[in-house]
Amino acid sequence: MRICFIGDSFMNGTGDDDCLGWPGRLCARARRSGRDVTLYNLGIRRDTSADILVRWEREARARLLPEHDGRLVFSFGVNDCVHEVPDRRRVPEDEALANAHAILVRAAAWLPTLMIGPPWTGEPDLDVRVRRLSERLAGLCGALAVPFLPVCDSLAGADAWLREAAEGDGIHPNRQGYALLADLVAAWPEWRSWVERPGRSPPP
Amino acid sequence: MRICFIGDSFMNGTGDDDCLGWPGRLCARARRSGRDVTLYNLGIRRDTSADILVRWEREARARLLPEHDGRLVFSFGVNDCVHEVPDRRRVPEDEALANAHAILVRAAAWLPTLMIGPPWTGEPDLDVRVRRLSERLAGLCGALAVPFLPVCDSLAGADAWLREAAEGDGIHPNRQGYALLADLVAAWPEWRSWVERPGRSPPP
Repeated sequence: MRICFIGDSFMNGTGDDDCLGWPGRLCARARRSGRDVTLYNLGIRRDTSADILVRWEREARARLLPEHDGRLVFSFGVNDCVHEVPDRRRVPEDEALANAHAILVRAAAWLPTLMIGPPWTGEPDLDVRVRRLSERLAGLCGALAVPFLPVCDSLAGADAWLREAAEGDGIHPNRQGYALLADLVAAWPEWRSWVERPGRSPPP
Repeated sequence: MRICFIGDSFMNGTGDDDCLGWPGRLCARARRSGRDVTLYNLGIRRDTSADILVRWEREARARLLPEHDGRLVFSFGVNDCVHEVPDRRRVPEDEALANAHAILVRAAAWLPTLMIGPPWTGEPDLDVRVRRLSERLAGLCGALAVPFLPVCDSLAGADAWLREAAEGDGIHPNRQGYALLADLVAAWPEWRSWVERPGRSPPP
């Protein structure tokens, strides 16, 4: 199985001194349990939904050929919500939703696709916008039948996530925070259905 | 510093149960020594020099903006040398050199660039071709003033590299092999000049 993880800096694993991020931890766990997973980490720092819309498919198609059991995992949204000038988001909320719709419709028509919601940042005003976007992305994914895992509330209550971000660049965690996020995804039944072998039947 | 590692499956880290490959190990070492390195692993399984020629610059430019202290590391060549039909390489040797020339001229004119030679595969006929291509790539890089690190002979003598490949899919190593390759690059003065801080001057 070859999986493209497409997203932003939190997908890239920015700030992780182990250089694994959560996709690396997640895929290493699957490999150690015997699944032959190939990881393509296509997270890019500062990428918004608009940036991902224009690049994701070309990059994924260069990596996933029809014979490869290709899979897609997306996670983005925080950068859309950032204000670089006062009171103006980098991507307006409705436009972010339209970008996500355009991405996910094509993705899900091509390959098995999952979406992980945007994480918590620890910046209160930003997190209000991130949580609202996460809720709207959840609704969009529901309408498109793309499994969606919200993570911002879980991470908001995670000491390691907040502490490592504060010790780092203020927004990205380090190894413990990314390990926490990997644990959330690893426990998600939609992910487990990709990587767990079906249990053996009891003897007749 | 943000570094794009562009290449094939050996760059991707295929077969590594830790999902780090050699670029992950190398960058984690730099981060632990205090360098703020961001890793973009752009290795793609099965990619030849021809595949990389058509994709590398668009992918790197999406990741490296002028303000980022961007760097480029290339490694490819084994797939060019593979025979998929008898006596016919996937990419003829002169064409592989022409592709590498086209890639490296543009890369080095844009950003600091390094090249790591193709590794050892353990398949005797293939390795004859890989070693010859490595030697020609070394000559090309010399002419272009792109630092080049040959690794195939070092890996040919490395028990872990050969043993893990035999235990795996026959060609890709696992964690010990990739750690060995990371060690070779980490010890290379051209790499060290990127990530080592200059020593402090003695007090006057």
